[in-house]
Amino acid sequence: MDIQQIACKAQAAAIRMAALPGEVKNRALTEIMQALEAGQQAIVAANQQDLTRSEKEGLAAPLLKRLRFDAGKIKEACAGLLSLIQLPDPVGVTLSATELDQGLELYKVSRPIGVIGVIFESRPDALVQISSLCLKSGNAVLLKGGSEAAHTNRILADLITAAAAKAGLPEGWLGLLETRADVNEMLAMDQYIDLVIPRGSNEFVRHIMDNTHIPVLGHADGICHVYIDRAADPRMAVKVCVDSKCQYVAVCNAAETILVHEGCAADMLPDLQKALEAKGVEIRGCDVTRRIIDVGPAVEADWSTEYLDMIVSIRVVPDLEAAVDHVNHYGSGHTDVIVTADRAQAVRFMDAVDSADVFWNASSRFSDGYRFGLGAEVGISTSKIHARGPVGMEGLLIYQWRLMGDGHIVADYSGDKARPFTHRKLQKTFKR
Amino acid sequence: MDIQQIACKAQAAAIRMAALPGEVKNRALTEIMQALEAGQQAIVAANQQDLTRSEKEGLAAPLLKRLRFDAGKIKEACAGLLSLIQLPDPVGVTLSATELDQGLELYKVSRPIGVIGVIFESRPDALVQISSLCLKSGNAVLLKGGSEAAHTNRILADLITAAAAKAGLPEGWLGLLETRADVNEMLAMDQYIDLVIPRGSNEFVRHIMDNTHIPVLGHADGICHVYIDRAADPRMAVKVCVDSKCQYVAVCNAAETILVHEGCAADMLPDLQKALEAKGVEIRGCDVTRRIIDVGPAVEADWSTEYLDMIVSIRVVPDLEAAVDHVNHYGSGHTDVIVTADRAQAVRFMDAVDSADVFWNASSRFSDGYRFGLGAEVGISTSKIHARGPVGMEGLLIYQWRLMGDGHIVADYSGDKARPFTHRKLQKTFKR
Repeated sequence: MDIQQIACKAQAAAIRMAALPGEVKNRALTEIMQALEAGQQAIVAANQQDLTRSEKEGLAAPLLKRLRFDAGKIKEACAGLLSLIQLPDPVGVTLSATELDQGLELYKVSRPIGVIGVIFESRPDALVQISSLCLKSGNAVLLKGGSEAAHTNRILADLITAAAAKAGLPEGWLGLLETRADVNEMLAMDQYIDLVIPRGSNEFVRHIMDNTHIPVLGHADGICHVYIDRAADPRMAVKVCVDSKCQYVAVCNAAETILVHEGCAADMLPDLQKALEAKGVEIRGCDVTRRIIDVGPAVEADWSTEYLDMIVSIRVVPDLEAAVDHVNHYGSGHTDVIVTADRAQAVRFMDAVDSADVFWNASSRFSDGYRFGLGAEVGISTSKIHARGPVGMEGLLIYQWRLMGDGHIVADYSGDKARPFTHRKLQKTFKR
Repeated sequence: MDIQQIACKAQAAAIRMAALPGEVKNRALTEIMQALEAGQQAIVAANQQDLTRSEKEGLAAPLLKRLRFDAGKIKEACAGLLSLIQLPDPVGVTLSATELDQGLELYKVSRPIGVIGVIFESRPDALVQISSLCLKSGNAVLLKGGSEAAHTNRILADLITAAAAKAGLPEGWLGLLETRADVNEMLAMDQYIDLVIPRGSNEFVRHIMDNTHIPVLGHADGICHVYIDRAADPRMAVKVCVDSKCQYVAVCNAAETILVHEGCAADMLPDLQKALEAKGVEIRGCDVTRRIIDVGPAVEADWSTEYLDMIVSIRVVPDLEAAVDHVNHYGSGHTDVIVTADRAQAVRFMDAVDSADVFWNASSRFSDGYRFGLGAEVGISTSKIHARGPVGMEGLLIYQWRLMGDGHIVADYSGDKARPFTHRKLQKTFKR
């Protein structure tokens, strides 16, 4: 099958997925769980092929670690499936109900989006997680995983497809893409695909955003800031900065720039330098910073660089407004933090910073679907519509308006003798 | 100012708009109301210029009628402003609150989207309605109205801008574009503009959708169907079809195709023909239809044509599934209707038809923000994300995640001695 056929089949499947009862979807998730357990040996063997080849090709150790899909990972994936089964069906939920007139009732009912295209990094567990989230939310899905994980992804997709078919899921609801060329073809198919969720390197996400008319949910850069206000507790400020920068440097919610109010810079910077350098962080400072501590210079490009590494830039700012302006200008709308003992200042910062996540006295690293309590995460969005910040299953849903009448026509509500609408909110749910 | 400067200023204004207290926004709306009343003479004079020129240029009578902005229209616009003032501030509303751990609370708070670009048809009242909706929802707005209404739009934009400035709104929150070239420039400015809402001809909306990376909320075609099920009440079916087709033919929610279950076609079609032809509707039928009633043929292209005129196509289908397939294949995901006495069939139709609006025993013409009780309408969306169907102020809003901590760091929630999250739903609102 070529990509167009896969996408076209996914669209047909999506329409049937939208109407599936919750029990059928849960039965499919149960079948998938059992298939993963029963197929453990074959999965591990396929994964071993990927690992061996990737090792030969010199893949870095942290990436090899992410690629590994062993018995422990399979157990974790099954635990994830079980928690998904326990959630109520998110489709068909009444979001609002309004009486327009006697016997004319309008319901806003949750509904899957349709066909979701997901491009994800090398971790094969992402394939299980994403496909099961799409299944539970009634969406069809086209998946493209990391090429290093090709064998693992293929066997996982086959197992999942076969297991779901046993429960009665429509053929074609899950499509596996295998090359970058496949992805480029997919990006042109806005007649079949409703949403693209890219996860991966900045360049790749940006490439996708720039090359499709399909709506994209995701983020390219994660240029996150910590602003230390004059009213900050100095020890807390150091603690939050170190965690935001160092707890895991290679991720989008790690801090790249620290902004320091000039009123506390002389006090703060030496302690901050000591704590960061103890962790092995290279500091690049603005001129004012460098008059206080002995660090290398930050140039203009530093303020808009996502290091994803043990490097941080520091800038001293005259006040909160200047901090906000810096964040809004150089930031990526991802996650920004203020450390201050003054709640009013924190709220001013939150009102003015136009980012998906704004935190008060907490590490930027909390910006994550699991930590937010959203269950599994489909991604983090810096888009301004539909879904922002960490996105859970909610981001895979939309709604449909259902009007239930008894032969009502608009002519009766128009002209000189127009009947008035009642527009009364109802405490009712849509009845099947 | 060139378009880039206008867009850049709007972005800066948007950040300040997001933080405006509700009282300030209401004061601005009040000032605008007063300015429209005080400026009535000047507005009517400017509108007269537009009317005179458009009459000379031979603009059709219905369009001239839409272009007219007289004392009555000004009064209506002020009534709209008053009802907007009476609504609660939609920004800063707590949508959910979760305790992640002791002293670490996450709030999902409503927030404006940012900068909205709206392209609208010739009615100058749309300018007042859209700019006031954007103001109330804390968004900056770039407006492009119909060129026939250039003088009226200019004076309205000037009055609104001056009045809002008196109440303290940031400069540049409203930008007026005046040519199609301006619009094309705007479409390239995805760094400044967050959402485009085009209203107007199909071709124009499609042109916009195909020529921007900014998310677009709107619809091109409105190919709406009425499906008459075998279990339909025949008189109701005729009534709903006539209203859906004829109540106002030039609009997107008028029906273009009627699908009839073969089990009732012989009974239904003669009555349907009589009622539609009495209204002056030309019927184009499929082969089966033409064996029952004497009408012209429908060719393949008819099924995907939005007539916007006194023409309807009719197709006889073997069952509900075939009707659904036709709707999903040829429809535009706008509004589709089933007429049946059997609720279960209606629900099957709604589950399977992938349209924004699905109606049971009610005219497709109800698909409208005012009739839905949404207040003013920004547009009707056939997009699959963010907002679907008639979109009111809700479509101009998104949210921001606000995490309130006390020096919390992620290191404490990682590794062997990881603290667990509580993830407890809170019945609290975000406190300033």
